[in-house]
Amino acid sequence: MSGKLTLVGVGPGDPELLTLKAVKAIGAADVVVYPQKPGEKSLALSIAEMHIAGQATRLPVNMPMKVERKPAQLAYDEIAAAISSLLNEGKSVAYLCEGDPLFYGSAMYLLERLPEAQIAIVPGITSLTATASAVARPLAARNETLKVLPAPLDDEKLIAELTETQSAAIIKVGRHFDRVRNVLTKTGHANNAIVVEYATQDRQVITPLLDFAKDERPYFSTILCYKGDEAWGK
Amino acid sequence: MSGKLTLVGVGPGDPELLTLKAVKAIGAADVVVYPQKPGEKSLALSIAEMHIAGQATRLPVNMPMKVERKPAQLAYDEIAAAISSLLNEGKSVAYLCEGDPLFYGSAMYLLERLPEAQIAIVPGITSLTATASAVARPLAARNETLKVLPAPLDDEKLIAELTETQSAAIIKVGRHFDRVRNVLTKTGHANNAIVVEYATQDRQVITPLLDFAKDERPYFSTILCYKGDEAWGK
Repeated sequence: MSGKLTLVGVGPGDPELLTLKAVKAIGAADVVVYPQKPGEKSLALSIAEMHIAGQATRLPVNMPMKVERKPAQLAYDEIAAAISSLLNEGKSVAYLCEGDPLFYGSAMYLLERLPEAQIAIVPGITSLTATASAVARPLAARNETLKVLPAPLDDEKLIAELTETQSAAIIKVGRHFDRVRNVLTKTGHANNAIVVEYATQDRQVITPLLDFAKDERPYFSTILCYKGDEAWGK
Repeated sequence: MSGKLTLVGVGPGDPELLTLKAVKAIGAADVVVYPQKPGEKSLALSIAEMHIAGQATRLPVNMPMKVERKPAQLAYDEIAAAISSLLNEGKSVAYLCEGDPLFYGSAMYLLERLPEAQIAIVPGITSLTATASAVARPLAARNETLKVLPAPLDDEKLIAELTETQSAAIIKVGRHFDRVRNVLTKTGHANNAIVVEYATQDRQVITPLLDFAKDERPYFSTILCYKGDEAWGK
């Protein structure tokens, strides 16, 4: 394989949060690959689009909407095979990853499928730090532990991790919102928790957790948790 | 205060890991403030320097080398007072933060001292994601918990946090290296742990934890921990 693959973190949504290194990698690519869900415009593409060279090939990859892992894994098999052919032809390929490629990103699925390829990785701004900047509160400071907890974890695990913890971020909230809110109420984090939807995008919304009505749910969100009694934003 | 303060994350060291937004904020500032330790060139300045406008004022702030908090807190009192005066004069001020302003950064000390100021925050690439990119291994994936653990935490706390945990990053390693290595050996993470010194800088070095000799210690490092038996990089 004489070509080179660059896994490019494109950040959380604001196109100005691309790094100079990402801009350079995107502009230099012969082929730009990006994930796309059926019927949706790719967020990664919309962030990077203005930097793609005019003569470059765009290769959208259809990702299944399913929660099950099998269809997604088959999609990555296909992407890896396509990228492998391009690298054999000597092409330079950029694969766009929302946020950071290795922070809960999909880049690992390509890394494990392309052990022979020459691969560079450009880190990106995560939704984690973007969310903290949006609300202007530290994620963690001094010698605090910071925990990143995916919402699909079961209640028992979430409660165990949160109980003695000052600072945490809940990611992948989605359909787990009601359950997570109950957990945070039990662990003493709810009063100070902040929900950020679509961090850094034009449609960004910041809402204290307890301000959501019973049947309301946030979209595309991260919840920042701080233990303490002082309510946030009041 | 008619001026505006921007807290700018400048990333871990590679100047190309500045975001477009950071470059713009740095270039637009009337005054660029950055922390500096006695006898050292400021890392934040060296990352951002080429983007500072020719007519801008540079305001280095001497940070004490002490571990104690009191002298550092007094230094932040002074910085906040100086920035406050500049904002009252209508100046735009950029304060450079290594990494991300709110990920164990010093920006919180300014936020709490300048409640009246108009403040924008530009997130930066953290040493955490930079380190993962350097070693090309995921920080965490799927529904794993990711823990960021400052090395000064005592052994009991570190062991408790690591025991049931697949993925963790140990930050602020410094003089705690020997103790942390012992802890990781006890918790089963040592075999797979990777030490990255000076991530993304020209002097970056990547070393499996167990390859350090008994009297050797890494500088300016983050340790990525993965539980499992398969040794890394062998």
